[in-house]
Amino acid sequence: MKKSLGTKSLLYPTPVLVVGTYDKAGKANAMTVAWGGIVCSQPPCVGVSLRKATYTYGNILERKAFTVCISSEKYVKEVDYFGVASGKKEDKFAVTGLTPVRSDCVDAPYIEEFPFVLECELLHTIEIGFHTQFIGEIKDVKAEESIVDEKGLVDVEKFRPLLYTPEIRKYYGVGKFLGKAFSMGKDI
Amino acid sequence: MKKSLGTKSLLYPTPVLVVGTYDKAGKANAMTVAWGGIVCSQPPCVGVSLRKATYTYGNILERKAFTVCISSEKYVKEVDYFGVASGKKEDKFAVTGLTPVRSDCVDAPYIEEFPFVLECELLHTIEIGFHTQFIGEIKDVKAEESIVDEKGLVDVEKFRPLLYTPEIRKYYGVGKFLGKAFSMGKDI
Repeated sequence: MKKSLGTKSLLYPTPVLVVGTYDKAGKANAMTVAWGGIVCSQPPCVGVSLRKATYTYGNILERKAFTVCISSEKYVKEVDYFGVASGKKEDKFAVTGLTPVRSDCVDAPYIEEFPFVLECELLHTIEIGFHTQFIGEIKDVKAEESIVDEKGLVDVEKFRPLLYTPEIRKYYGVGKFLGKAFSMGKDI
Repeated sequence: MKKSLGTKSLLYPTPVLVVGTYDKAGKANAMTVAWGGIVCSQPPCVGVSLRKATYTYGNILERKAFTVCISSEKYVKEVDYFGVASGKKEDKFAVTGLTPVRSDCVDAPYIEEFPFVLECELLHTIEIGFHTQFIGEIKDVKAEESIVDEKGLVDVEKFRPLLYTPEIRKYYGVGKFLGKAFSMGKDI
């Protein structure tokens, strides 16, 4: 029996995306967002939804670029800090001790310690309501060699990315392997 | 050391979203997508990105409505089938034996056996490239009573939603609890 929970923005699970930007003065900032994901394969694009009040919002409009960095389980505390603190008041890289690296293809920094990054140029700005969706064209994907196999594919069991559950506000790891996609459904 | 993987649409992990629609004749269809997520909190909106060639694409334009259903681990095989088969050729509900239920608030069906559903009215259609992003306003969220606690919050450990890893095309379950969000980062 299903029960109505009302009109809410809920979905399980979400990825945990850390958006890297520079401000006008060139200070690197990082902000954790749960509302985001791939929105197009060709051109490859990722969307992240931000409130106007965030520091990152202004930085993206200023620089027309951002990165999307994905952490391993190791830095879950730092990831949470990036979502709690504001770049208006704090230098988040100084506080965490993590390292901003200038992207070689877009005007934005990524986080050295995080194993996976999408480097994006701003393509579309979609006003929806409380959140604005920034759609960035992915100009390069970079990953730590330690999580990439000999075929150039990401090994998610080595990567160990985080996931998030909204409203109940919890982080989880990736769990057990359940099956191959585009494969197991063919038996039906 | 980071390695360039080129320009690709990759992100880890993604949720596993099954989009429910009616066609012109009223036949229910379900299609699995990995490119989607919440895009706004107020109004609460979810975005799903679809290729024009899909049956669901035409159905959403026809009915201006869709649902986003999230399966538990139990139906991973059916979920994969919904992503492999096309509603143009097959009646996916007849083939899987799953049950379409007419939403009481939008012109779209949801899947009775899946524990979580967002019922959406089409709000924006964003042409990006190979994929079109449909942004739906969430008119109601429904969940099985068995996954909702006494406070009306979803218990993700009872729910056991799927997650997906693109390119390597694997399904995983939710893993171990890593910490409370908006909380653990405050110690830094």
